[in-house]
Order: sequence, then structure tokens, then C-alpha cells
Amino acid sequence: MKHEGTLGVAVIGTGRMGSDHVRRIDEAISGARVAAVMDVDGERAEKTAAGIPGCAAHTDAAAAMDSPGVDAVLIASPGPAHEAALLDALARDLPVLCEKPLTPDAASALRVLDAEVRLGHRRVQVGFMRRYDTEYVQLKALLDGGALGRALMLHCRHRNVATPPGFTEAMMINDSVVHEIDATRWLLGQEITAVSVVKPAPSSAAPDALSDPQLVILETSGGAVADVEIFVNCGFGYQVQCEAVAERGSARLGDAHGLYVNAAGRWGGAVAQDYVDRFRDAYDREVQHWVDATRRGVTEGPSVWDGYAAAAVCEAGVRAQSSGTRTEVDLAARPPLYA
Amino acid sequence: MKHEGTLGVAVIGTGRMGSDHVRRIDEAISGARVAAVMDVDGERAEKTAAGIPGCAAHTDAAAAMDSPGVDAVLIASPGPAHEAALLDALARDLPVLCEKPLTPDAASALRVLDAEVRLGHRRVQVGFMRRYDTEYVQLKALLDGGALGRALMLHCRHRNVATPPGFTEAMMINDSVVHEIDATRWLLGQEITAVSVVKPAPSSAAPDALSDPQLVILETSGGAVADVEIFVNCGFGYQVQCEAVAERGSARLGDAHGLYVNAAGRWGGAVAQDYVDRFRDAYDREVQHWVDATRRGVTEGPSVWDGYAAAAVCEAGVRAQSSGTRTEVDLAARPPLYA
Amino acid sequence: MKHEGTLGVAVIGTGRMGSDHVRRIDEAISGARVAAVMDVDGERAEKTAAGIPGCAAHTDAAAAMDSPGVDAVLIASPGPAHEAALLDALARDLPVLCEKPLTPDAASALRVLDAEVRLGHRRVQVGFMRRYDTEYVQLKALLDGGALGRALMLHCRHRNVATPPGFTEAMMINDSVVHEIDATRWLLGQEITAVSVVKPAPSSAAPDALSDPQLVILETSGGAVADVEIFVNCGFGYQVQCEAVAERGSARLGDAHGLYVNAAGRWGGAVAQDYVDRFRDAYDREVQHWVDATRRGVTEGPSVWDGYAAAAVCEAGVRAQSSGTRTEVDLAARPPLYA
Amino acid sequence: MKHEGTLGVAVIGTGRMGSDHVRRIDEAISGARVAAVMDVDGERAEKTAAGIPGCAAHTDAAAAMDSPGVDAVLIASPGPAHEAALLDALARDLPVLCEKPLTPDAASALRVLDAEVRLGHRRVQVGFMRRYDTEYVQLKALLDGGALGRALMLHCRHRNVATPPGFTEAMMINDSVVHEIDATRWLLGQEITAVSVVKPAPSSAAPDALSDPQLVILETSGGAVADVEIFVNCGFGYQVQCEAVAERGSARLGDAHGLYVNAAGRWGGAVAQDYVDRFRDAYDREVQHWVDATRRGVTEGPSVWDGYAAAAVCEAGVRAQSSGTRTEVDLAARPPLYA
Repeated sequence: MKHEGTLGVAVIGTGRMGSDHVRRIDEAISGARVAAVMDVDGERAEKTAAGIPGCAAHTDAAAAMDSPGVDAVLIASPGPAHEAALLDALARDLPVLCEKPLTPDAASALRVLDAEVRLGHRRVQVGFMRRYDTEYVQLKALLDGGALGRALMLHCRHRNVATPPGFTEAMMINDSVVHEIDATRWLLGQEITAVSVVKPAPSSAAPDALSDPQLVILETSGGAVADVEIFVNCGFGYQVQCEAVAERGSARLGDAHGLYVNAAGRWGGAVAQDYVDRFRDAYDREVQHWVDATRRGVTEGPSVWDGYAAAAVCEAGVRAQSSGTRTEVDLAARPPLYA
Repeated sequence: MKHEGTLGVAVIGTGRMGSDHVRRIDEAISGARVAAVMDVDGERAEKTAAGIPGCAAHTDAAAAMDSPGVDAVLIASPGPAHEAALLDALARDLPVLCEKPLTPDAASALRVLDAEVRLGHRRVQVGFMRRYDTEYVQLKALLDGGALGRALMLHCRHRNVATPPGFTEAMMINDSVVHEIDATRWLLGQEITAVSVVKPAPSSAAPDALSDPQLVILETSGGAVADVEIFVNCGFGYQVQCEAVAERGSARLGDAHGLYVNAAGRWGGAVAQDYVDRFRDAYDREVQHWVDATRRGVTEGPSVWDGYAAAAVCEAGVRAQSSGTRTEVDLAARPPLYA
Repeated sequence: MKHEGTLGVAVIGTGRMGSDHVRRIDEAISGARVAAVMDVDGERAEKTAAGIPGCAAHTDAAAAMDSPGVDAVLIASPGPAHEAALLDALARDLPVLCEKPLTPDAASALRVLDAEVRLGHRRVQVGFMRRYDTEYVQLKALLDGGALGRALMLHCRHRNVATPPGFTEAMMINDSVVHEIDATRWLLGQEITAVSVVKPAPSSAAPDALSDPQLVILETSGGAVADVEIFVNCGFGYQVQCEAVAERGSARLGDAHGLYVNAAGRWGGAVAQDYVDRFRDAYDREVQHWVDATRRGVTEGPSVWDGYAAAAVCEAGVRAQSSGTRTEVDLAARPPLYA
Repeated sequence: MKHEGTLGVAVIGTGRMGSDHVRRIDEAISGARVAAVMDVDGERAEKTAAGIPGCAAHTDAAAAMDSPGVDAVLIASPGPAHEAALLDALARDLPVLCEKPLTPDAASALRVLDAEVRLGHRRVQVGFMRRYDTEYVQLKALLDGGALGRALMLHCRHRNVATPPGFTEAMMINDSVVHEIDATRWLLGQEITAVSVVKPAPSSAAPDALSDPQLVILETSGGAVADVEIFVNCGFGYQVQCEAVAERGSARLGDAHGLYVNAAGRWGGAVAQDYVDRFRDAYDREVQHWVDATRRGVTEGPSVWDGYAAAAVCEAGVRAQSSGTRTEVDLAARPPLYA
């Protein structure tokens, strides 16, 4: 179903991510408007809606989806609330952009998958925004173009300045490495079949309970190997790098760029301090791409299958973290809808 | 006057630049739509309008501005047609984004300036898109912040792959160096007071009549000096670089970045091949910024004064090119409207 | 024992490495001269000696060491010949620079170690030339200085253009990764306690029998983890990189540098094509340092213990390659001589 | 005349540069030794000689040259003393390495030139050490190779942290830009025919009398143009860069390299703080090359003509500095000896 006019979007969840998406749709995206917002905190929902002409505020996701003028749904509520919202949206056959994770675990992701399969067509794009980052797109094109031959290894770095209180080892996989998991699957066009985790003696900058950094090793169905440094208390900045090593060359993304300054005996520049700074343009492109595809009547980008597979790999990763042994990924059969 | 709804834009001129802006407003800009297009080639205007819902096609600029739903004007016709279109728009008190050059010479630019001064408020933003390039914005902020002290020199490189037939030496100044002229004025917040041109023996890759490359030296009212390499047949790519040298450090923009590839005995990456590739995001930000400001009821960005001053410096530059001597810039008094 | 005059060196082995050292001592090193050369191929020895004033040619290592004017020995014969030559030199209490590997296996290395321990003082420097590379020296100083805190991980890349005929998987460890093994021990001041090897599906550019590339993971006594990409048929160049990740920052060496060229649509530069090109200066500094220390009457640099420990880690590495399982390193007790 | 044994060098002048050369010959150079030193400060000469076996101390340059075992002369005394020492050495037909400047002015340089021409063969190498810097050598080879076509422009940066007391504007040309003058002549194989100087408003970090920085423009006999930023109080480091712009590409040297560090929100590295740090290896190679050539019985490298031409260009440069006008270089005819 094409949407010829401006796309009315219901934004579910108005926390940090959700309110950023509301602002984005309002200010930066062509062809869409925020028609409704929902938050369990009704006051927050009202406050967010107040700035947007014609935007309704709700405390119930389904009610927000049923609001007048709603053509599509952007889910940015906390992960545990995703399944219900996704099933509500699929029941209404509404196009969805669902922030990652699809759902917090593989079993619930599979239930969403089953619902979409029953619907018979894709309606959900999952919010793996790196697929819209300029350099990732260039790397994907370079690998797909074949000039460097088959990709053999990926070397990935994922560094955060510091963790908020309550950040757990499992979250290092589920919240952070999940991006490398999706990027690896997408860049190589392969499934991840096994995960190992090696833990160095932790940094003294890490909270007590956190073995930080870690080296996560992913093996893929095509025999490639990706190693991921996850370091969530690196102190100096937010830094994402990836080098693909292929048969006839290698290609690296994520080198710091921007202004090159000479001052006080040093040359160099500033490291981004958070993901908003680093991936701002990728988020803009992601949402614009979703709006454009939705208006053309199609669903593209990362699928429910991608969300489910990432969840399954994360589960194996968390088990590998605890057990210290190589852990195989248990993946359901891929339905033809996602072929 | 605020524009609460979607801004209806009349695009004057549907050549390469104009049709790119039509596509941009249609696909990438939030809060605006193309309400009318105008081209002296009526067929081209019709063709462009055909793809846009509710877009009228005209062969007369004033008629396009009077089209229903037109709130603002984007002028992208050839330079010689700018003056008339600008005066038409100002007569209607319509907000304008005018592609550079404002007009082809200082005298006509001054007539537009007089018209806007008579109107009593700014209505025109001139299309110096570099002011919206991420790195230029960072450089401006760094210099304004004062951490490096006062800027003393700028070293600028402006390289094009090759010139189209009919490209003249004067166009090296008027079409190319004009960007460095505006960037120098803007980065330093100073006027350019004199221009010198030094011509090396030309490249054998340059057409017969063209002394290419050239070194253009700009002196400013604050005593700074900018040197500009203009090389419009450099062969290898489109490359714009600028290093500001200040009292306590220097800062450079325009280093190639993006993917870093090892292959075939070389490390490195791809150089952009044209300005569309290099400044795509800057154009998007420029137009979005104009739309946003216009909807808020204000006019910001490069002014008619900036367009006039650039034209006056270009005239001095072209005289310096012919005479081989340092040529002072003859600048009118700056009206208080542009203080 | 100090050597006040020019140091007379017997060079054992005049193959590629040995003849390069002969040339080096003759042309680039201050305070030394080649007093004798030895090669089992007498003709080759004669030929090498011919160009050097006062240089004797031998086919027997001990005879070369006994040649008039010989004050010190540089061993550059094939690995299996090292043990005998080392024992000959130690029997004469002659200072030695022994090309890596010290000996081909841990057992023979231990015999050399025992001989030096019996001698009661160090006489042997092992040829791990990376310790003399400018950037490695800077990295060591940065880590030792403590500004970045304790080192947690090393990410290493070791890439060769292509393998010669007969190159085996074990040689990937023994000839190539041995450098990262020594560098890890030296940079961190820790022993390596375990090795794991992960093998991606091999590159189609690798010879049939060679699973190339591989990811080798080293664990250290201090809890650090080093991952090493060894790729001996990478095709594009000889490239050695190392990033140390520490508690408050990271530092990387081995980025390509030298001329930065814009041409044919690309920016970048040339990758070194072999270790001679990449480590020429390091070899010069290594030999100069050995000559200087020897003339001052001391033995410094990588020790027999370092050579033995590297051999022991290599043995574990080769076992890990075959078994596919994490393999602990079996290390003898470190004699006080090497404290 | 070949020197088969170790070359005995008399070092004239044991100030900063001279004592550094004494140390270099003693510790780092193959095939040479310091046979005598001379300084007008006899105590300083004695002190320097004391550490070197068999080294005589003198207060008279000619006496030092006549010392036993002296085969060649390295002149590192203050510039005004060069002419006499050069004439003394030429009178003895001794090979010379003379630190830059050859002599302080063109007239005295011409007298030395005449003396060498009368001698009938080259005996003097002038100490323009940049010709031995790895990157300069690569740039020269790249330009000579022709892959980029003819060189059209050079963009040069020459930055010092700060000036010592008494540093004058003329010294900005004579002591600093003289290196770019020689490099331009050498890289292009052309003479410099005219000099212009443009002075921005000076940095507040510059001493009162010094208009710092300046932009010096050199024109060459082949029609190339070199612009040189000379900034001797830049504050942040010692930085020398040069970009050659040719018909089919450009090549830049002097980008900072070495360790790439992430820390405290910044990426980057350290800028060299003085010329000793930046050009240490170039000095080593320069002296080694001179010793090697001298032992082979030849004189190579920068010639007396190069020293004279640099002096003549400097004189034009200093005149251009004062007059503010483009100043042509007045050059004698080049004797066939330097063809």
C-alpha cells in the first residue's frame, strides 16, 4: 500500500531514543510527520506531543496506533515492551521501524517472526542503523563488488567512554556487540554459527562486576572469522572501527577524521564522545529510508529475521561469556519470506 | 512572517543545479515542497513538474512566484538571470535562496542590495554552501572559540578534474575561487582588500587558452593573508582543502577520508570526483537551514552583502589576473542592515 | 671485556640475511668490520669475503671464530645450525648476535641457555629486530611511562605478500608470529602462558596445504590478551601493525606513512613489499646497538631466555594449530641470570 | 683520490652543530673517525677531543687540517668563518662537507666557487641535509620518474616553535627559508629567478621586531611557483611540509606520523619539537653519504654552485622582504664544472 501524502507516524516510547526520533521526524525527515506519541509516562507523552502540530498523546501503544492519521509505527520503547507493540502493529498490518533489539531474547523474536510470516509479507524494519552509515555502506559495496575477493576476517573495535550504573556483562553483548553481530551478518551475507569470548584481566576503570574489555570471536557459515574488541569503559571516546580482510586486500572504516589540528605539541583531532555524535547521519538516513520505502509501499532494510538471528547469536554470546567455551548458535530454519 | 505548514517553494531554473534542488526538496528536506518550477525551456519545466504532486510549471519567473501555494523562491537559473528574479522576489517580499553568484558582477549585485535595503529587512540567502559543510563549520567554531588565537593565514586548495569547453580564466575566479573568497571572509569575519595572482607555466593538461593552475593571494582588512591554489584541470579529482594558521596552532580541513583500503601495493582511498559528491551533505544542510529559518520567519546565512562583496573581490581578482599586479578591492559602504 | 678499537666480527652464514649483515657492517655500522665469514658453501664465503679488506673466508664456524682479529660473532646461518655455532661461541666466551630463531625448538634453546648460564654471564643477543624499530620503541616507552595505564590487549597484524614454495603452517608460527610473540613479551614485560588458533576458511590465494590466514590468540601471565592476524599471502604488501589497548587509551603503530600522493582518483601511498624495506632501519639500529654494547663490554637486548621463551610459545602455538584447542605454554624456570 | 682505510676527519667548529657531528662520526658513521677538532674556544676544542681516541685539538682551522691523519674536513663553524676555512681546505685539495650556509653572502660564495673552479674539480659538499631525508628523496624520485608529469607548484610550510633572542627578519630567509630555496632548486632541477614576500599582520607571539609569519613566493626558471609559509614562532612544534603539485597529481611530505594515540578525547600524535628530532636520520645519511663518496674518491651532493645560488636567492629574498616588491635574482653564469 503506497502512501502518497505525508506519512503519519506513531512513535511508541518517548525516552532518549524515542524523543530523538520525534525531533528527527519533525525537523529532518522529508515526507513524514509525528501523528501520535505513546509513553507509559503520560506526562512525558503529553510534553513531547505538545511541540508537534496535530500530534496526539497516549499511554497505550495500540491506542496510539489507532490514532487518526497514523500510517506507520516507530517503536522506541524499552526492549521488553517491543513484542507486544510489534504484535499490535502486525495485527493492524502497519509498517514498523523497530529500534534494536527486536525483542530481548530469541524466543520472543521468534514469536514476532511467526506473526509476520503468518501475515505473509514484511512489515517490520529493525533499527540496525550502522547499515546506513556512509562508511559501512561503502565497505559493503566494496566487498560485494568483489575487487578484493572473498572476505576472510573482520577486526572490529567497539569502545564506549564509560558504562552507566547497572551495566552488566550480558549487556556488553546484548546492547553493544549486537551491532557487530548484525554488521558481520550483513557485510558478509552469512549467518554466525559460533561465539567464543576471551576475557583479559579487567581494566581498573571498569566497575567491580564488569570484566571489561573482552574479545568476542564470531565464526560464520561461510568460514569467516570476526574478532570484536568490546571495551565499554575505554575512557577516551566512542569509537567504532571495522577492518575487513579479504583475499586481495583489506579495508578499514572508522578512522577518526574531521579537522586535523596542530596545537600544543600534538597533531590530530577529536574523538566522538557518544553514538549520537558518531551515528547522527546514519540515524537520519535510516529513518528517511524507512519513510521513503513505506511511502512506496515496500518494507526494506534489516528484517525480523535479522533481529531474530542477532538475538540468537547474543544468547550464544552470553552463554560463551559465562562458560568460557566456544558456543554454537542454535538457529531456527529461515522462512522463505526472508530468503 | 512565520510559515507554520509546509513551505511551498518556487524553483527558478531547472538545469543541473535547479533540478537537483527540486529533487532535494522533494526527497530530502523536511517541511518544504516544490509548489512551482520555472524554466525558459517550457518542456524542461513541464518534465520536472510532472514528477511532483501539485507542482505548476512556468516559463516566466514572476508567474512562478505568483503560483498558488508559493511561499518562497529558490533561484537556480543562470547567473545573468538572477538580478531580475531577485528583484521580482523582493518586490513580492518573498524569502529567497539564490544560488551563487548573487549576480554576475558587482554593479548588478549592488542594485539587488539597494532593493533589499529599501525593503528594510533581509529576505535573501546566497548559496555559499561551504558554510554548511561539517568541517568548515568546525573550523569556523574553532577559530571563533579562540583556542588557537587570531588567524594569520589560510592555505587553500581548489582542484577540479577538468574544465568543460569554453571555460575561461575569468571563470577560474568567478566560478571557483569565489568559494574561497566567501570562505575567507566568513571564517575570518573580515573583508578582502586586495588580490594578487601568480601564474606558473600552465599544465599541458590545460586547454590552450587557460593558464592553469594559478596562485591567488587575498589580503584582508584584518591583515590576514590567504593563498589559493586554483587548479581546474588537476586530473585526479575534486579536492577542496583549507588550512588556517593561527597564533597558537593550525587546523586543516579537506583531508581525504572514508574507507582506508590496502590493495595492489597501495594504501589509501578514493578522491571525490565532483562537487556534488564532495558537498552533497552541505547542500542538504544549506537548504534545510533555509527552509527552517524561513518557516520561523527569519532570514539567515550568507547575505546579499556577502554576495556583493564576493562579486567585488572577483572583479579585482579578474583584473589582477590580466594585469599581473596586486589589485585593491573597491567596496561600497556596508549598509547597517548587514552590520 | 671492552673492545676499544674496531670490533672484528665473524659472520656465520652468508645467505640472504648473512650477506645483508656483511654489507651492513661494512657500509653502515660504526666501530665494526667483518673480520671473517663462514658458509658451508665455500665459494659463496670466498665471494662474500672478496669485497671486504682483511676478511677471511671459512667453511667451518669454529674456524671462522678462531680467525685473527675476530672479537665477536654474528650468526645468520639456517636455524638448525645455530645451536652448534652458539655453543662454539660460548665456549670461546665470544659476544654473539644470533639471528632469530635462537634455535629451531625449545629443547635445543634450553641447551644453549644452560651453556650461557654455566658461563655465568650473558654473551648472546637474539635478533628480534622489532625491538629496535622506532615506532615499537615509542610504543614501549609510552606503555612503560604509564600515561595510558596498564595494557589490556594487543591487536596485531602481520601480513606478507606471498609465501615461497614449501612454506608450511608451522612456519606461520615459527617464522612469522614469533615476532609478535617476542614483541608481546617485551612490550608487556610478561610471559605468554597459552595460545589458541582460529582458522577461517583459507584464501584462494594461499597454496593448497596452507590454511592462510589465521587468528592466533596469546594470553599472558599478567592477564593481557594479544590477537594476531597472520596472513602470509595477503597479496598487497608487507604490513606489520600493532595496537595496544590500555586502561586510559590506545596506541597504534604501523600505519603506512611516507609520501601522500593524489593521482588517478586515489589518495594514499605505497605499502612496503618486504621486511627488508619495512625494517631496514631497525636492522641497522639493532646491529649498531650490539656493536656499541659489545665494545663497552656488555651484552644487552633480547636474551637467550627471550629466545627460549619464544621457542616454547611457538611449540605451543604449533600444537594449538593442529589440535584446534587452547594450549598452555610449558616454560622452564627462569634462571637468575635473566632476572 | 680514494681513501681505502678509515677516513680521518677534521671537524672545524665544536658548537652545537659541530659537536653533534663529532658525536655522529664517532658513534654512527661507518668508515670515518674524528682525527682533529678545531674551535676558537680552545677549551671547548680540548673537551670535545678528550672523548675521542687519537683526536687532536686546535684553535686554528688550517692547523687542524694539517693534523696527522686528516683526510677530509667538516666545517661547522659560524657562517662568517666558512670562507677562510673553505679556501684553506681547497688550497690543500681536501674533501669538505660544509654546513649551510656555504658563506653568509653571494659575493663570498662566489669567491669560494672561483677557488674550486680554479682547482678544476669538486671538493665541497654543502650541508643541505633535506636532500637526504627519506621523504624528500622519495618526492624527488617521484617527480623525476615522471609519473605525475611536470611539477607546477610547491606548497611549503616551515614552522619553528619559537625564535631565540636576536633573531631577525633576514634570518627568517637566510637560516630558515634557505632550506626551501635549496629544496625547490633540487626537486625541480631549476634555478630560482624571482622572490616576493607577503607579510600578514604578525602573530602576537612573535617578538616586537619580527613580522612573523611571512609568505615567500619563489619563481623558477622553468616557470614553476613555490609558496613558502615561514613561521618561526608557531608555538606547537617544528614542522616541515612540502606538497608538489604536478600535471597529473600531487604528492605531499611531512605529514606527522609515528604512534597514533587515542587518549583523553583526542586521536593523533606528537609533533617534533626541533630540527634535530625531525632530521636526525637525514643528518646521519648526509654524513655517511659524504664519507662513502669521499672514500670512493668522488664529491657528490649539493655543490658550491648550490651554495652560491642559495645565497643569491636569499639576498633577493631579504631585499624583497624590505621593499615589499617582487625581486629578481641576480645569478652569475654557471661554470661548466657544475653542469
